[in-house]
Amino acid sequence: MSIKFQLKASVLAVALASLPWMSAQAADEPIQPIEPVKEINLALSELGKKLYFDPRLSRSGFISCNSCHNLSMGGTDNLQTSIGDKWQQGPINSPTVLNSSMNLAQFWDGRAADLKEQAGGPIANPGEMAFTHTLAVDTLSSIPGYRREFRLVFGEDGVNIDKITSAIAEFEKTLVTPNSRFDHWLLGDQDALTATEKAGYELFKNSGCAACHNGPAVGGNSFQKMGLVQPYQTDNPAEGLSAVTGKDADRFMFKVPTLRNVELTYPYFHDGAAQTLTEAVDIMGRLQLGRKYSAEENAQIVAFLKTLTGDQPQFMLPILPPSVDETPVPRPFD
Amino acid sequence: MSIKFQLKASVLAVALASLPWMSAQAADEPIQPIEPVKEINLALSELGKKLYFDPRLSRSGFISCNSCHNLSMGGTDNLQTSIGDKWQQGPINSPTVLNSSMNLAQFWDGRAADLKEQAGGPIANPGEMAFTHTLAVDTLSSIPGYRREFRLVFGEDGVNIDKITSAIAEFEKTLVTPNSRFDHWLLGDQDALTATEKAGYELFKNSGCAACHNGPAVGGNSFQKMGLVQPYQTDNPAEGLSAVTGKDADRFMFKVPTLRNVELTYPYFHDGAAQTLTEAVDIMGRLQLGRKYSAEENAQIVAFLKTLTGDQPQFMLPILPPSVDETPVPRPFD
Repeated sequence: MSIKFQLKASVLAVALASLPWMSAQAADEPIQPIEPVKEINLALSELGKKLYFDPRLSRSGFISCNSCHNLSMGGTDNLQTSIGDKWQQGPINSPTVLNSSMNLAQFWDGRAADLKEQAGGPIANPGEMAFTHTLAVDTLSSIPGYRREFRLVFGEDGVNIDKITSAIAEFEKTLVTPNSRFDHWLLGDQDALTATEKAGYELFKNSGCAACHNGPAVGGNSFQKMGLVQPYQTDNPAEGLSAVTGKDADRFMFKVPTLRNVELTYPYFHDGAAQTLTEAVDIMGRLQLGRKYSAEENAQIVAFLKTLTGDQPQFMLPILPPSVDETPVPRPFD
Repeated sequence: MSIKFQLKASVLAVALASLPWMSAQAADEPIQPIEPVKEINLALSELGKKLYFDPRLSRSGFISCNSCHNLSMGGTDNLQTSIGDKWQQGPINSPTVLNSSMNLAQFWDGRAADLKEQAGGPIANPGEMAFTHTLAVDTLSSIPGYRREFRLVFGEDGVNIDKITSAIAEFEKTLVTPNSRFDHWLLGDQDALTATEKAGYELFKNSGCAACHNGPAVGGNSFQKMGLVQPYQTDNPAEGLSAVTGKDADRFMFKVPTLRNVELTYPYFHDGAAQTLTEAVDIMGRLQLGRKYSAEENAQIVAFLKTLTGDQPQFMLPILPPSVDETPVPRPFD
């Protein structure tokens, strides 16, 4: 483990130690409890929830945000790489939308600064929803139920991509998962974890995992090289941050994924190559930390990781306003 | 309109007139209010809801019942024909699941006797979910959360296709849409409909639509020939009931679709060829009744049809139990 990583974790721990709502115990740990959601524009979020579930934002009329970031399944599709328009194979594993508001940037390579910028990406990506922002706006603008709701929420007539992505991002800000057993423990309930889980957490900290997987989201707050000690072998052509910065030094630098709800977000890594937590922990140990965990150690870490599953967002399935005669018709087979 | 149809409607009206909960007004009409749901096995239905939303019942891990019978969109996909495994184009328009418990049989050609039998069809259809019942059972059986819930619901260990389809069917029985404005009118609220809507309903009855579209679901209770007065022109090869009975006389006999929530279930007909209600009413008038509705008459009937939109089922999006290391991995691109 490099000194840079140790420093980063220490700085974070000090910075977070001053949050007044946190127990003394949580303040001493590299992981902090998930803060409850505050300052949500509820009307905007409710509109965003509809849009998140609306396949009319795709060319086919079949794929919605929820198709690949399924809120019944940990905010992922649980596939190695996703299925896009016309069943195209996606280039990368769909990261979970849960707690994604805590990420320092969006996408594995960080090419979107925030949730709002991210939300516009898949809509217009020819391999994903394969629509255009213009057609998405035209479609929603034709639907009286949406026109009314946008007017109500924004206080003015008109639908545009900025309003659409703002609404989706606002909904996504609500998708946090507090109340995990690990958070109970952080907040002072000593009995919330078993001895094995506690041992796993100690090992997670002491062997270096927490250098990158830290903070409330247990990740999501830095870019790190995949294959630090040993190179990562993959057929996946994704190069990570260098695709954004153009710097050769950023090759294979990926955003560290959150480990919150990791029990639900299989398969793992940017290429989705690790199907199980056991496999993922083993690979991370060897490639990132130069350490081969014993079967017992691996099982302890996996037991700890499963304590990071929090309350899943609970909400009513949204009912979408119907298209009308003027609404452009999806043509999935053209 | 044939005498046979008139007789059928009369018999139905007499049979229904004796239901004690109905107002005198409703009893005199060919359409009756939707009865509230009674006698649901709630535990079974809650399990069925999870299964309805679970794409792991498909080979790809991507397609669930809700993909084509989307409960955010009137229980349909609002596509001409559906998208199946590997983006195969479906052969027929996906009918709404809403109020489908009232159908005399399931599928457009009635090849399934009831919801339970229907539920097994798409799972194993190579053009739809493309799985097998055996693999679906193996998948669910591997998931501890499902094993526990099946045991709780059925009082015994073991998952099988009979239990799976029973649960889905029980959930589907809850998907009724009472409380439409038309039902308010049937139940005695004279002001629930506008003059135009009432005129549309009178025309709907007097010109013969109600001969086939009657009962609480405003359809779903008989097979009728598509193209009765004039032949229906379509490229769609579906032949309807004859595919089930083998009788030439049953060619182009299709189950009369429900008109409940028809505003939400576009496009229309077994081939999904009519995109708008205006178009559908015009074609029905000419082909089934030998009558060309004027623009005003058409608009009146459409106005009436839109009063049939009832309360959409409201429920929490289910959270699915996660797969474990032993669960077979979906291979959408193999």
